Amino acid sequence: MEFKDLEHYISKRQALNAALTLFAWDQDTEAPEESVEQTSKYVGTLSHELFELITDENVKNILLDLQLQDLPLEQKALVREWLKDIRKLEKIPSDKYQLHQELLMKAQHVWQKAKADDNYELFLPYLKQIVEEEKEFALYRKNNEENLYDVLLDDFEPGFHTQQLDQFFDMLKKEIIPLLQKIQNATYTIDKTYNEKDYDIDKQRIFNHWIAQYVGFDFKKGLMKESAHPFTTNFHNKDVRITTHYYLNNLESALFSTIHESGHALYEMNISDNITMTPIGVGASMGFHESQSRFYENIIGRSDLFWKPIYPRLQKAFEPLLDDVTLQHFIDGINKVQPSLIRTEADELTYSLHIMVRYEIEKKMFEGSVDYHQLPTLWNNLYKEYLGVTPSNNSEGILQDIHWAGGSFGYFPSYAIGSAIGAQIYAYMKKTVPIEQWILDGDFQKIKDYLKNHFHQYGAIYNTNELLQKVTGEPFNPQYYIDYLKNKYIQIYHLINE
Amino acid sequence: MEFKDLEHYISKRQALNAALTLFAWDQDTEAPEESVEQTSKYVGTLSHELFELITDENVKNILLDLQLQDLPLEQKALVREWLKDIRKLEKIPSDKYQLHQELLMKAQHVWQKAKADDNYELFLPYLKQIVEEEKEFALYRKNNEENLYDVLLDDFEPGFHTQQLDQFFDMLKKEIIPLLQKIQNATYTIDKTYNEKDYDIDKQRIFNHWIAQYVGFDFKKGLMKESAHPFTTNFHNKDVRITTHYYLNNLESALFSTIHESGHALYEMNISDNITMTPIGVGASMGFHESQSRFYENIIGRSDLFWKPIYPRLQKAFEPLLDDVTLQHFIDGINKVQPSLIRTEADELTYSLHIMVRYEIEKKMFEGSVDYHQLPTLWNNLYKEYLGVTPSNNSEGILQDIHWAGGSFGYFPSYAIGSAIGAQIYAYMKKTVPIEQWILDGDFQKIKDYLKNHFHQYGAIYNTNELLQKVTGEPFNPQYYIDYLKNKYIQIYHLINE
Repeated sequence: MEFKDLEHYISKRQALNAALTLFAWDQDTEAPEESVEQTSKYVGTLSHELFELITDENVKNILLDLQLQDLPLEQKALVREWLKDIRKLEKIPSDKYQLHQELLMKAQHVWQKAKADDNYELFLPYLKQIVEEEKEFALYRKNNEENLYDVLLDDFEPGFHTQQLDQFFDMLKKEIIPLLQKIQNATYTIDKTYNEKDYDIDKQRIFNHWIAQYVGFDFKKGLMKESAHPFTTNFHNKDVRITTHYYLNNLESALFSTIHESGHALYEMNISDNITMTPIGVGASMGFHESQSRFYENIIGRSDLFWKPIYPRLQKAFEPLLDDVTLQHFIDGINKVQPSLIRTEADELTYSLHIMVRYEIEKKMFEGSVDYHQLPTLWNNLYKEYLGVTPSNNSEGILQDIHWAGGSFGYFPSYAIGSAIGAQIYAYMKKTVPIEQWILDGDFQKIKDYLKNHFHQYGAIYNTNELLQKVTGEPFNPQYYIDYLKNKYIQIYHLINE
Repeated sequence: MEFKDLEHYISKRQALNAALTLFAWDQDTEAPEESVEQTSKYVGTLSHELFELITDENVKNILLDLQLQDLPLEQKALVREWLKDIRKLEKIPSDKYQLHQELLMKAQHVWQKAKADDNYELFLPYLKQIVEEEKEFALYRKNNEENLYDVLLDDFEPGFHTQQLDQFFDMLKKEIIPLLQKIQNATYTIDKTYNEKDYDIDKQRIFNHWIAQYVGFDFKKGLMKESAHPFTTNFHNKDVRITTHYYLNNLESALFSTIHESGHALYEMNISDNITMTPIGVGASMGFHESQSRFYENIIGRSDLFWKPIYPRLQKAFEPLLDDVTLQHFIDGINKVQPSLIRTEADELTYSLHIMVRYEIEKKMFEGSVDYHQLPTLWNNLYKEYLGVTPSNNSEGILQDIHWAGGSFGYFPSYAIGSAIGAQIYAYMKKTVPIEQWILDGDFQKIKDYLKNHFHQYGAIYNTNELLQKVTGEPFNPQYYIDYLKNKYIQIYHLINE
């Protein structure tokens, strides 16, 4: 058999996938209120078609044959990834899969209500059933030596296991918690009340569109809208879409959401033409994707190098609200450390502590038996232990994220892995190219080109560790992240003599 | 076989169709500039899938079996329409069909550029190729006695042929051109310079959203955006979308586009729940659809009854621009007869003359051989002959409409047929219900209910003539339209004694 026997199936898979992506985009940004129920039938039908296609017997036979052949790199990767998808899906009885999808849809509605009403008990039976079914599905495909949670981790971060993550999080715990305590005891304090003034939404729209373009988002190959929760989606490398969300009394929120999503978008826009519109024409992994969004949002976007040339423009855009806020004051403000209850509002330093809470609980759910009634208490205790704060209710506690209601377990760690990958790449860039000068000069084309040439173009041809090795000459090494955080916050909080 | 054997195929057909509709909607309202070429491959693939499904042998066998059975009305109609689709498509090789769909998507993009740059030569090769392929497809399915253009007419207005249309247009020519001349010689003249003042776009947006709602558009089941050319699209009866287009110095344009598209939308929103999301859950024909948009836009929307209660609101919305324009002056203005170059901006009386230009050219393209380089001249000559005006460039001449770029030939006549159907239905309503009082009272729920009960609910269960017979007790009779126009314009232009 030849690779071209597969091409018809690739086209169909990508077209169905693009249609589903477009329905989701539409639903999240503009579809009318009463359309959902009927439109979800279309989505169900198309999802079913896609499932059938991915696990199609003919496709599998072609792939198994191709797997033995000496193929070009891209084709080899595509065959490998598709076979992986088949292994993930084929042992799940299709009726059970269908029922599980229905459960997830219902669970997300119930979760919304539970969160709104601060009623964990309402969500509990759904959470329990989702975990049980996810366990069952993971069992179908687990190797003998694997533990169950590793099967899930592998979906988002191929090659990462519990053992490696435990080490990573232990390192963070050991370094960040003491650093956080130092900051909380520092004599230097940061005021950011300026951020809560009335920032006209239309002016925010104009500035955010400008800043997306400034960091390299190409509006000929993408667009920007608004949604409840900011996200990025894409159809191919010439159609990448981001959303942001504006708040009158929070200037930062939209700004850093926009830069974050632009980072995701630049990755997708940089995927090579010869793999876009194929299953490997996407980011290498969740963590690698998140590394790019966080690279732009935090490493670049919260630096003084970044704001030095453009801060006057920000001041002018919202005149006179920032007239008496100096650049230094603004940089301090956007880096203020403030342990909080809500992950999505966390500062750069404490973000990974939020992830650790979820990681601990997910491991418990998948590795042992857990009393679901005790989970809120466990959540609250971990927040107290890691962040020093305690939720006053479950809505701002265990019910805050939609992920579990959507059946996503093993996904959260990638957020922290992404931060570490971003820091590792930045450290390498500092050694080899004048990245700091590029940022100061606003020369984002150079940054975009560097990232494209060194790894964006490859999409999912390589896995996380292979790609890191290729880009930085070494595998995943979180020490760079620790060093980055320490250096940054020692400087921000003038801790050098404390 | 049973009808339920078909249901799986109906779901798939509707889901693929909805996906294609969504891609088109996206492309027309927001997709990024450079996305078109790659996205058109998805569209090609999905169109191919849809084509394969519609012409599937299993489906055909089920349909042929069901055709002989005694089925409920809706099922019978669905079987009839699907078999008609099969007859339309089955002789076209599927690869050719897919390439044609991709051509159309590209051609629409090229047309946009050609129109913007006044560059007909850029569009010419696309137009030529589209017509050649459409001819080839029409040849596959034409009966011996049919001429080629009749094959296309039947797609939009089943049962209408060139002969009947020639008669209809001759009637219009005979009646409208002399009426137009009388109006142009009338002593009563109408000033509408007020329409060209600076009407703030944001204020127009607010007013147009309001007026859509006023005539019955339900924003829980639909939404309104902006596009170069206003249009309506729908996914089912709970998701119907319209667009409009705002001009700073033309208040009327958006207003009547909005009312027009709302008329289309109300039809789709009124389709019965038991046929929405099936192939017959759509308007009965293009002409019937257009009859509803024109009924709302012209018969209702340009009447004094309609504006009497709401004109003060319009004045207030654009204060002080309309302060010295009386209701009578405004009504005269929106009915001013002014032969122009642009179809979509045409007044109610001369609109069908624009259609006649296109009808003549389409007949030439499909019935004989035509020199495509000469088409702009032909276009300009016909405008001179019918309307007494000549385009100064091709953007306002032959490039003005997107239809041909989208492969729609035989479609334009339905606009004129629609006007005539609208007038026929209105004449019947005036005899049987207090429609004028409903309009004056702004009681659009009653109008919407009437239309729903009498025919909207039925979708495409009946064809144009059956439905007209059912609604008004007689088949297509354009005399009502002639009478309507004569009465209206004699009054507007005070021609009674001239």
